[in-house]
Amino acid sequence: MLIIMKPNATPQQIENVVQHIKQTGLAAHLSQGIETTLIGAIGETHDMSTETFEVLDGVDMVKRITQPFKLASRQFHPENSVFPIDGFKVGGNDIVLIAGPCSVESRSQILETAHAVREAGANALRGGVFKPRTSPYSFQGLGEQGLEHLAEAREQTGMPIVVEIMSQTQLDLMLKYVDVFQVGARNMQNFNLLRALGETRKTVLLKRGLSATIEELLMSAEYILAGGNKQVILCERGIRTFETATRNTTDINAIPVLKNLTHLPVILDPSHATGHADYVSAIARAAIAAGADGLIVEVHPDPARAVSDGKQSLKPEKFAEMVKQVKAIAEVMGRRIAPVGKPLVVGW
Amino acid sequence: MLIIMKPNATPQQIENVVQHIKQTGLAAHLSQGIETTLIGAIGETHDMSTETFEVLDGVDMVKRITQPFKLASRQFHPENSVFPIDGFKVGGNDIVLIAGPCSVESRSQILETAHAVREAGANALRGGVFKPRTSPYSFQGLGEQGLEHLAEAREQTGMPIVVEIMSQTQLDLMLKYVDVFQVGARNMQNFNLLRALGETRKTVLLKRGLSATIEELLMSAEYILAGGNKQVILCERGIRTFETATRNTTDINAIPVLKNLTHLPVILDPSHATGHADYVSAIARAAIAAGADGLIVEVHPDPARAVSDGKQSLKPEKFAEMVKQVKAIAEVMGRRIAPVGKPLVVGW
Amino acid sequence: MLIIMKPNATPQQIENVVQHIKQTGLAAHLSQGIETTLIGAIGETHDMSTETFEVLDGVDMVKRITQPFKLASRQFHPENSVFPIDGFKVGGNDIVLIAGPCSVESRSQILETAHAVREAGANALRGGVFKPRTSPYSFQGLGEQGLEHLAEAREQTGMPIVVEIMSQTQLDLMLKYVDVFQVGARNMQNFNLLRALGETRKTVLLKRGLSATIEELLMSAEYILAGGNKQVILCERGIRTFETATRNTTDINAIPVLKNLTHLPVILDPSHATGHADYVSAIARAAIAAGADGLIVEVHPDPARAVSDGKQSLKPEKFAEMVKQVKAIAEVMGRRIAPVGKPLVVGW
Amino acid sequence: MLIIMKPNATPQQIENVVQHIKQTGLAAHLSQGIETTLIGAIGETHDMSTETFEVLDGVDMVKRITQPFKLASRQFHPENSVFPIDGFKVGGNDIVLIAGPCSVESRSQILETAHAVREAGANALRGGVFKPRTSPYSFQGLGEQGLEHLAEAREQTGMPIVVEIMSQTQLDLMLKYVDVFQVGARNMQNFNLLRALGETRKTVLLKRGLSATIEELLMSAEYILAGGNKQVILCERGIRTFETATRNTTDINAIPVLKNLTHLPVILDPSHATGHADYVSAIARAAIAAGADGLIVEVHPDPARAVSDGKQSLKPEKFAEMVKQVKAIAEVMGRRIAPVGKPLVVGW
Repeated sequence: MLIIMKPNATPQQIENVVQHIKQTGLAAHLSQGIETTLIGAIGETHDMSTETFEVLDGVDMVKRITQPFKLASRQFHPENSVFPIDGFKVGGNDIVLIAGPCSVESRSQILETAHAVREAGANALRGGVFKPRTSPYSFQGLGEQGLEHLAEAREQTGMPIVVEIMSQTQLDLMLKYVDVFQVGARNMQNFNLLRALGETRKTVLLKRGLSATIEELLMSAEYILAGGNKQVILCERGIRTFETATRNTTDINAIPVLKNLTHLPVILDPSHATGHADYVSAIARAAIAAGADGLIVEVHPDPARAVSDGKQSLKPEKFAEMVKQVKAIAEVMGRRIAPVGKPLVVGW
Repeated sequence: MLIIMKPNATPQQIENVVQHIKQTGLAAHLSQGIETTLIGAIGETHDMSTETFEVLDGVDMVKRITQPFKLASRQFHPENSVFPIDGFKVGGNDIVLIAGPCSVESRSQILETAHAVREAGANALRGGVFKPRTSPYSFQGLGEQGLEHLAEAREQTGMPIVVEIMSQTQLDLMLKYVDVFQVGARNMQNFNLLRALGETRKTVLLKRGLSATIEELLMSAEYILAGGNKQVILCERGIRTFETATRNTTDINAIPVLKNLTHLPVILDPSHATGHADYVSAIARAAIAAGADGLIVEVHPDPARAVSDGKQSLKPEKFAEMVKQVKAIAEVMGRRIAPVGKPLVVGW
Repeated sequence: MLIIMKPNATPQQIENVVQHIKQTGLAAHLSQGIETTLIGAIGETHDMSTETFEVLDGVDMVKRITQPFKLASRQFHPENSVFPIDGFKVGGNDIVLIAGPCSVESRSQILETAHAVREAGANALRGGVFKPRTSPYSFQGLGEQGLEHLAEAREQTGMPIVVEIMSQTQLDLMLKYVDVFQVGARNMQNFNLLRALGETRKTVLLKRGLSATIEELLMSAEYILAGGNKQVILCERGIRTFETATRNTTDINAIPVLKNLTHLPVILDPSHATGHADYVSAIARAAIAAGADGLIVEVHPDPARAVSDGKQSLKPEKFAEMVKQVKAIAEVMGRRIAPVGKPLVVGW
Repeated sequence: MLIIMKPNATPQQIENVVQHIKQTGLAAHLSQGIETTLIGAIGETHDMSTETFEVLDGVDMVKRITQPFKLASRQFHPENSVFPIDGFKVGGNDIVLIAGPCSVESRSQILETAHAVREAGANALRGGVFKPRTSPYSFQGLGEQGLEHLAEAREQTGMPIVVEIMSQTQLDLMLKYVDVFQVGARNMQNFNLLRALGETRKTVLLKRGLSATIEELLMSAEYILAGGNKQVILCERGIRTFETATRNTTDINAIPVLKNLTHLPVILDPSHATGHADYVSAIARAAIAAGADGLIVEVHPDPARAVSDGKQSLKPEKFAEMVKQVKAIAEVMGRRIAPVGKPLVVGW
């Protein structure tokens, strides 16, 4: 960490900063410039806040030289992280396609959707059973019954299931069912939840918060990794800006930036990132062209009857078209859609 | 709710919307305009999403006529909500001043601060014991020991204590100690936590999320109110924008807008809203001038040694100056600083 | 336009609104609902502000049924606008690649760059001669001398030249040299300039403002179109958000949204949209995959010596790589890179 | 300027940076740390971009030690700038109140408004004659006729007039009439216009752009100051954020931040900053409480008939109430409303 003193800092203020650095177990390196004095704080600083020094008298600013995250950083882990999800692999050359409804609404709805997206080329199934709804009066999910329906869908189609967890109190129940825990945008900084997931050994799909910076997303991943769970997938899902023509603004820049900063797999959610079924395919193609490792897409057999997110859900036939387009882009990028892990149950 | 059909909507699409309205238990009111057809959905619609109708074929847009929140709305509760916090009242003519350190760091630190802010005119004490930190490597709070220190400070100074809760798993423990539950910006949409707090009968200080709209803040309040807990204080604490000169951007507009939309008390946190001790007093004065019902301010006896938020913490003497200025503005507004509820313990 | 009255609006307020509508030359269509009264204002309303009615007593809100822009709208012009730029065509099946330095710095610099980008596959040359610089102390451009260098580059390479205009006072001079007028982000709402360009019959490349909505971009295009100049190219170049990892946030959603709303060609500037040469190729690919009609890219023979925008400028060899990638994506989309219009001058 | 090299920078890269510094006429100060090498570029750097060095090989980041603006900076001019506007003074202890309609609509409208605001306590009159309208179909202002009406209002009331200039082509005409040139938010970075105004010796009221940072506002002021015109008033008028409950978000933090960074007077426009007449008084009070040197407020005798901005315009009687409240806050701040400079013409 580099501490830049004010031009008029006194020798005592400088000495005070040096003492402060030593007290925190770091080495201090003093450099007397013409305009100002610079003090380097040398050692393990990724776990320190710049504020530790910013508050000291005579300090003008503090610059971080090393990143505040470590386990998530490509500096310390140059190779891509590749890990298996129940049969196929994520983070390598293969593109993962997760698809399914926003909410599990009924047994028939999730089974119908599962078979349709599997047929179209998806390799994992999503579906919410605990729903974070802005209004306390909205449908809040089927709970455990929903998990049972998802498990049945997995058995029939061979696809692993991806389900959102909202609270660490749901952890024990969900551990019995889910293959991948999804952490939603609103919970990206629910640190208690992140810590609890770090204790598990299940893959976590971590969505970027509505107004979280890329660095904050990586810091949240660090919470999970610090617990020993190395299987974290990052997901760009649009950020909140002044533009109202779409539900969110897809931060497509985040794809190459994240691939540069971290070894973790990075996927994109074009459904939330746009909020309109009409724009999902274009943004799905863009994501793969920009270097994303996969997509998570909302698909519903009858969007007009969906209890949530119908406006941004693709009908299965539209999803199938999207998969074809994405496949063609993937090939140009020298990649392919990951195959489904387990065999399909015949005779459904 | 008002459904505006596309100019070329077919009679069957219109009929389909009407049927949909009836199925949801509402009455439909059809109005055939020259350019387009309008359909009113009449009844209890505050608990419905506009999306229910937006996804139907032929629908152009859906406009909400009534607000999506009800219990929080001034339409249904024109009088200000006024409720007691351990002796004094919030939401009425009195201004509440909550002050204290970001984190409880030690017994002596919190006792010293408590006496100092009490002397300066504060009427409630804040202090965090479970800290939401961006980095997993940062200090995470003293936990129950911190609560014990706070309880001792309350006993000595007579001031009620305001403590942040991060997860419903902390609820039982905290219920034994705290007077006011604070919900932090990152948890404003932790709906499980909001629901749990709605079941209690303790006051909740609900902070606006970093990128939450005013309407979303009121929807989160609605979650607590819907559980039967009527004691909710709203808190503007700055929003995230492109401006980097300050930590956040104080949305001062939110004060008169909230006072117009809701009957709940509205306070402002000038410490987080600016991020710099130098700007806290100016924004504190502005908040009261704009009509806020109180302030929550970070005060630390030695900001340079604070484990967190030192940069934005006032020294006790600076806080005392701020209180004088705020008092003068309050008088112009025809208000006064609330007195402390319980007597001060002598002989400390 | 649809005027929604407050639930408690009086008959006189309703009558007042009706009179107001008639005075503006529109027809009024009254619809008495159960909860509220709706009044349609029928006629040519795209040139009216909703505010005309919002300020009237008893009015709750005003909803626009038709778009505020007309000449730019796909509703009134369903086919793509396709127009020639000195030999090749923009807005049709071909992808246009505009490349060159931020600023024209010298004769040799612009000639070297022009030949390099032409060889790599560009079909138009960009270069600034009047530079909008944040600091009054920065290099402000070569002025007319720069235009002469650009004209020489055009003669040698056959590529049309794209130059930014900052003020209508520069119009007469520039008309003698440039093929395409570029309007920069900071001037997107310089309405005097837009009107002046509407009077010309040269193509205008209109960049989206830093914090302009998509609708505002289309309204600015409408200014040019209203003057009779039909040759407007829209350009997404990143918007300002809270994210600081990149210079701007590429609003990739804007590509499919604009292609849906307007018939005008839409291109993307990955250099400004990211601010880093490392990310330009990924975003260029994403733009074409999302449906953009072209790209404008900063290329400099020696970015480290560039007087401006060096950090985001590609070296010619990097640009050549980018063109190959973009070409492959274009083919997947069933498109091709537009050929250069005029023949190359041999013997340079 | 401080250049931080990458940890693995080669000696040749370091030497290259040093040479680069010397070529730009600065001195280089090398400091070899343990983790990295730091190079100071010493001398007149406020007129240099950090990019000059960021693009060099081996450079990690470049930190500015001195501010990029100089004439506007309080560092170089610690005392407040105080200058006269036709009789009274701005920037000192007095608060300036500028009021009037968005647009001059007719002789009678502007005269009526001028007398009303003068009577209520305003000391300067605003009114637009060239209007920057989002739509090319909207009313664009009365032009010179409007200036004549304003001049008449000045003669009758003794108040100086503040008028927006949109283009340097309007300068000669306006110089004959106006006392204060207003530069609107959309033109804050119209550098040609700023330079032209820097050549005049008339006061310039410079509004912050919709998404301009505080630093960019000061850089735009620097353009005017660099031309020799020292009379610049800065104006916060709300920034664009995700919040839609108000037209803009008042950045109240900007008031104390600007007062800290610059010696120039700082005022606030509560009309544009909120967009609703109902919220104007609250934000006007907040501005003065936060330390603003004045206000510019939209007032219209009949907002419902205003051709523009009616929704945010105060009726004269509401404005008179606002002035009383602002006066009381000003007194608490130890200030007073500036008196009107010239005598009132009797017998109108």
